[in-house]
Amino acid sequence: MSAKKSSLYESLTESGAIALAKRLQLFEENSNLTCNEIGDGNLNLVFKLNDIETGEGIIIKQALPYAKVIGESYPLTLDRSRIEATALLKQGEFVPQYVPKILYTDDQLAITIMEDLSRLQIARTALIEGKDLPLLSKHIGEFLAKTLFYTSDYGLNQHSKKSLVKQFINPDLCKITEDLVFTDPFFNHDSNDYEPELGPDVERIWQDQALKLEVAKLKQKFLTKAEALLHGDLHTGSIFADDKETKVIDPEFAYFGPIGFDIGQFIANLLLNAISRDTENQEVLYTHIETTWNVFAKEFTTAWKKDALEIFTKVDGYLEHVLSEIFEEAIGFAGCEIIRRTIGLAHVADLDSIQPYEKRIVTKQIALSLGSELIKNQKNITKPEQFKEYVKQAVTL
Amino acid sequence: MSAKKSSLYESLTESGAIALAKRLQLFEENSNLTCNEIGDGNLNLVFKLNDIETGEGIIIKQALPYAKVIGESYPLTLDRSRIEATALLKQGEFVPQYVPKILYTDDQLAITIMEDLSRLQIARTALIEGKDLPLLSKHIGEFLAKTLFYTSDYGLNQHSKKSLVKQFINPDLCKITEDLVFTDPFFNHDSNDYEPELGPDVERIWQDQALKLEVAKLKQKFLTKAEALLHGDLHTGSIFADDKETKVIDPEFAYFGPIGFDIGQFIANLLLNAISRDTENQEVLYTHIETTWNVFAKEFTTAWKKDALEIFTKVDGYLEHVLSEIFEEAIGFAGCEIIRRTIGLAHVADLDSIQPYEKRIVTKQIALSLGSELIKNQKNITKPEQFKEYVKQAVTL
Repeated sequence: MSAKKSSLYESLTESGAIALAKRLQLFEENSNLTCNEIGDGNLNLVFKLNDIETGEGIIIKQALPYAKVIGESYPLTLDRSRIEATALLKQGEFVPQYVPKILYTDDQLAITIMEDLSRLQIARTALIEGKDLPLLSKHIGEFLAKTLFYTSDYGLNQHSKKSLVKQFINPDLCKITEDLVFTDPFFNHDSNDYEPELGPDVERIWQDQALKLEVAKLKQKFLTKAEALLHGDLHTGSIFADDKETKVIDPEFAYFGPIGFDIGQFIANLLLNAISRDTENQEVLYTHIETTWNVFAKEFTTAWKKDALEIFTKVDGYLEHVLSEIFEEAIGFAGCEIIRRTIGLAHVADLDSIQPYEKRIVTKQIALSLGSELIKNQKNITKPEQFKEYVKQAVTL
Repeated sequence: MSAKKSSLYESLTESGAIALAKRLQLFEENSNLTCNEIGDGNLNLVFKLNDIETGEGIIIKQALPYAKVIGESYPLTLDRSRIEATALLKQGEFVPQYVPKILYTDDQLAITIMEDLSRLQIARTALIEGKDLPLLSKHIGEFLAKTLFYTSDYGLNQHSKKSLVKQFINPDLCKITEDLVFTDPFFNHDSNDYEPELGPDVERIWQDQALKLEVAKLKQKFLTKAEALLHGDLHTGSIFADDKETKVIDPEFAYFGPIGFDIGQFIANLLLNAISRDTENQEVLYTHIETTWNVFAKEFTTAWKKDALEIFTKVDGYLEHVLSEIFEEAIGFAGCEIIRRTIGLAHVADLDSIQPYEKRIVTKQIALSLGSELIKNQKNITKPEQFKEYVKQAVTL
């Protein structure tokens, strides 16, 4: 990992953030501003600025040259700030309604200034609180279809696509996913983090050569399949939402990868929330999963029929082949995400907040079983309705 | 297509080539040099310089900012000169014995100076003349295994691989392959070029939706599967050889693509030569095909076991999966290459030089049938020995 810390780079302070906002005339000259660093992430400073009188606000995000979670010893390229801002602008071309407005970017200082979304709630938190977020999956289905189709060789001319691929070569952030999603959880690696009671289940995963062969193939796809510009980290913690609105944030992991990865990560995080609930409250999540896929497939098909630039899109059966390959890969990627969120370095609150402890352990065992079965049954699952069956099956295992 | 013609660029003349060689001290100061432009390609000037007294020679290759075959109206980026030189140097790290020595490069002038290989013969010409080139397939099998393994995520650390991917983004040259290999021959396109007697066979290809669906999938792999640094144009006209030595030249189409593409193109060109011969003289080509794959698989396996950096390479069955996927894709790519060399823009002398005319037409019909069957039977061919059967079958169709 290389952290090319530009000589012009310095970390913003709260007063520096206010000065920058004023210099850029993002507020009235004499406005009275408050500023709070609200970053709960591991990689960035996030300042929230508000005008005390009008209440209007903006967010100033600055990438740090290291990962806070592990300390300064884990350097991370500041280039991810450029990647994130460029991805937000690119996604904004296709679905401005689902990404924050970008007000200013500075690649040297690794700063992006954007719309304040604090009227909304992080989707993970809302789902943990039992909220329905009724439009979440419809919006994300459309976000996925449009951002992925129009950056793929189906919907973008192949010359422009290759220039974009070059702009979004993102080795440092991809490496995090390669290690933490696709590798470490499947081997006895220091970065793993799980309760001792899960030991036998974890050991079973590490011994399961058939499972690991499928993970190897999925990792290879993540490494080599430059199909479309992915968000790259599309879990429910990267989404702001309420009953009416949805905004996808934090695409610093963006790169050209397999379409199924974004879909699989999102579905996996819905499943993780589902299994954290009592059975009678899970249905809304399964409906979200079905809607995500159905809206994705419908919108992708519409774009394919209306805007495809690739002449082979007219060939009988090609669309069906592409959609079924995407679905199959999404299932496998979802399985990897569920496993790594249970025993890998980065957990999810959906599972970790389960009380009492015994119930948490049982739920995590279900998660591991579900993740493994999804990975091993990619070819047997052909409809989004089947995810529910696999959860039921995992509960009884 | 963009041809960024640098302000420093100018085409070399024969006297300019001599002056350059002297300035670079590639010959003794007072040596008496001859210089001939010997380029028979469509895209470059190629000067052969020789010292009259010692006989020693060098090649100065300069990319032209347009494709000569179609005239100045088809501009081509000079960046392909950088791509070619960088690819030759990279391949030279793994198999110096199979690529020409590079003496000098100038990206601005799009010039590469390299070892003169005129002691050898272009493999296509030698094969058309009925020569055996006994070591050709052993050498190419090793060339393929080493250049592809050590530039893939299996044998190269994933950070370096991504930097290489970026260096080898090659939109203009990839576009030629995308159009001329994977698209135009399968549709009624102006660039196609075939004898009127082939009309019904060509029409049958254009109507064959099952065939075109497979070609669509192969084209998608060419567009998206960034598996290893390909040569990108590995036909028998890109190889110099004699009974003892083999040198692969002209990697200006190099980019990160599916490993099976290089293998498939080479095998296709051996098959095109085979079907141009009488049955009793074909065996040597089938042996070359088997040797190519067997040496490739053996050397790839050796490198995998010795030098793999990817931890999943230790997982049971992964190597076998990777090899069988490469083989399957190679068959499909070989089928596309055979069809496009028969009815597309760029033909091969193996077919075009067949006399009399009627025999040429029959052979081209066999080629079209063979190409189609390979594409449709990718999953049914599991051993290189089976290519021979498919030729026999194509002859009787």
